[in-house]
Amino acid sequence: MNHVMNRVIKIGGGILDKPEQLNAVLDAIARRPDGVVLVHGGGRLATDLAERLHLPQHMHEGRRITDYDTLQVVTMTYAGWINKSIVAGLYARGVAALGLCGADGDLIRSVKRSPDPVDFGFVGDPVAVNHDALRSYAGDAVPVIAPITHDGAGTLLNTNADTVAAVIARALAPNVELVFAFDHVGVLRNLQDPTSMIPELSRASATTMVNRGEIHSGMLPKLSAAFSAVEQGVPRVRIVKYDEIDGEGGTWIR
Amino acid sequence: MNHVMNRVIKIGGGILDKPEQLNAVLDAIARRPDGVVLVHGGGRLATDLAERLHLPQHMHEGRRITDYDTLQVVTMTYAGWINKSIVAGLYARGVAALGLCGADGDLIRSVKRSPDPVDFGFVGDPVAVNHDALRSYAGDAVPVIAPITHDGAGTLLNTNADTVAAVIARALAPNVELVFAFDHVGVLRNLQDPTSMIPELSRASATTMVNRGEIHSGMLPKLSAAFSAVEQGVPRVRIVKYDEIDGEGGTWIR
Repeated sequence: MNHVMNRVIKIGGGILDKPEQLNAVLDAIARRPDGVVLVHGGGRLATDLAERLHLPQHMHEGRRITDYDTLQVVTMTYAGWINKSIVAGLYARGVAALGLCGADGDLIRSVKRSPDPVDFGFVGDPVAVNHDALRSYAGDAVPVIAPITHDGAGTLLNTNADTVAAVIARALAPNVELVFAFDHVGVLRNLQDPTSMIPELSRASATTMVNRGEIHSGMLPKLSAAFSAVEQGVPRVRIVKYDEIDGEGGTWIR
Repeated sequence: MNHVMNRVIKIGGGILDKPEQLNAVLDAIARRPDGVVLVHGGGRLATDLAERLHLPQHMHEGRRITDYDTLQVVTMTYAGWINKSIVAGLYARGVAALGLCGADGDLIRSVKRSPDPVDFGFVGDPVAVNHDALRSYAGDAVPVIAPITHDGAGTLLNTNADTVAAVIARALAPNVELVFAFDHVGVLRNLQDPTSMIPELSRASATTMVNRGEIHSGMLPKLSAAFSAVEQGVPRVRIVKYDEIDGEGGTWIR
C-alpha cells in the first residue's frame, strides 16, 4: 500500500486519435506516475475498423450499441492495439505499466444491460470492482485499463470508459481524484467558444443544460459518471483539457 | 513464491479456431491451475481479419511478415480478442487469470529483427524475460500471455508464440515443464497417419526430417523453440494433442 493520492485519469477518443495529444498525456504521467490509474476509451479506431469491416454502428445517447461482431471490434481495438500501444509508450518514458481490462484479475464484473427499453447488446454495467486486486496485480506499475468488462460466466462486455473510470475512482475513494481529460478546456456553454467554460458544475445546472440541448451525445455518459462519482464519495472530480491534467483548471464537478 | 512445478502451456492456432478444443484446454487448466503460464498464438482470426481488411499476408518458414497494418491486426486479435476471451473463459471455470502481452510489466523485451536476409517487418526476437515480474504481477492468477512484445522504446513487435513459450520456460528453468499443445497427437512422420507419431525426437533426427521435407511450415519454429528450450535447461518439453496436456503422451523433445 502506498500513501500517495490515487489519480484516476480517463482519456477519451479525441486524445487517442491524435498522437501529439496522447504523447502530452503520457509525458504528464511520466512526470508524476505515482498512484495513477489510466483508463482509456477507444477513439475513432473502433468505428473506423467497424466501417472497414462493413459493420453498421449505432450510438444511443453517446453509448455504442454492441452486437457480437462489434464486441469483437471494440475488444480488439480497446484491449488490444490501444491498450498495448499506451503500455509501450509508457515504458518508452521509463514508466512501468500493466495493460488490463476489467476481465483481468476479475477487476470489474458487470451485468449485461437489460434489452428494455433499448437493446444495447453486449454492453455491461459494472456491479463489482476488485480494487484490492487492482493494486496487488499492478504493484508499482501504472494500471492501464481498457473499458471491456466481463460477467464472470465467460462473456466479455463493452462498458463505457467514463463509467469504468468512475467506478474505479469510487472503489478507491476517498483517497482519490478523478480526472476526465479530453480535447476541450472543460464543459462549455458553447462548443465553439473556449471562454464559455463552466468552472463549476452542479447536477441541477447540468440537468438544465441537458434539457436545453446544450449538452448532448458523448458528454452525457461523462457527466453521469462524474456526478455519480462525486455523490459516492470521490472528493475531486474534474473535466479538463489533456494538457492540464496536472493543474487545477477545467470544470469541477460538485 | 510457490513450490509447484511451473507448467508453460502453449496453445496454437488450430485449437483457438475450434471452441471445443479450446474448452478442453481450459477445462484441463481448471483441473490443475497451479503454476500454469498459458501462452497462446493467434489462429486464423488474424489472417481472416487481415483478409477482410484487404491486407495481403505473407509467411516465411511459418513466420508472419508483419508490416505496420499487420502489426495492428495481430496486436488486436492476439492481445485483444483472443487474450481476453481466454481470461473470461478461465474465470467462468473459477480460475483467476491475468491477460498480458510481453510489453505489460516489461515481461519480454525484444529487438526488431534485422531486415537481412528476410525483412520480417515489425517482428521481434526476445532478448530479456522478466520472470520475477511474471510471478509478482500475476500472483496466484494464471498469466495468459499474448505473443506481442516490445522494444522498450515504444514499439510493439510481433513475436512467434512458440518462441515466447520457450523463452518464458527457459526463464523459469529448471523448475518447469513446457507443453506445446496442438491438434495432432505429436510430431508425425506422415500427417495423415496418427500412428506415425514419433515418441522422442532429437535435434539430429529432426534436422534429417526437415531436410527430407517431412517437417515444414508452422512446425519449424515450434521445433526450433522446443530444442532451444531443452538445450537451455528446460527439463521436460513435449509436443502433444490438446486433450493430453495432463498426460505423458506426445512427442518428447530430447
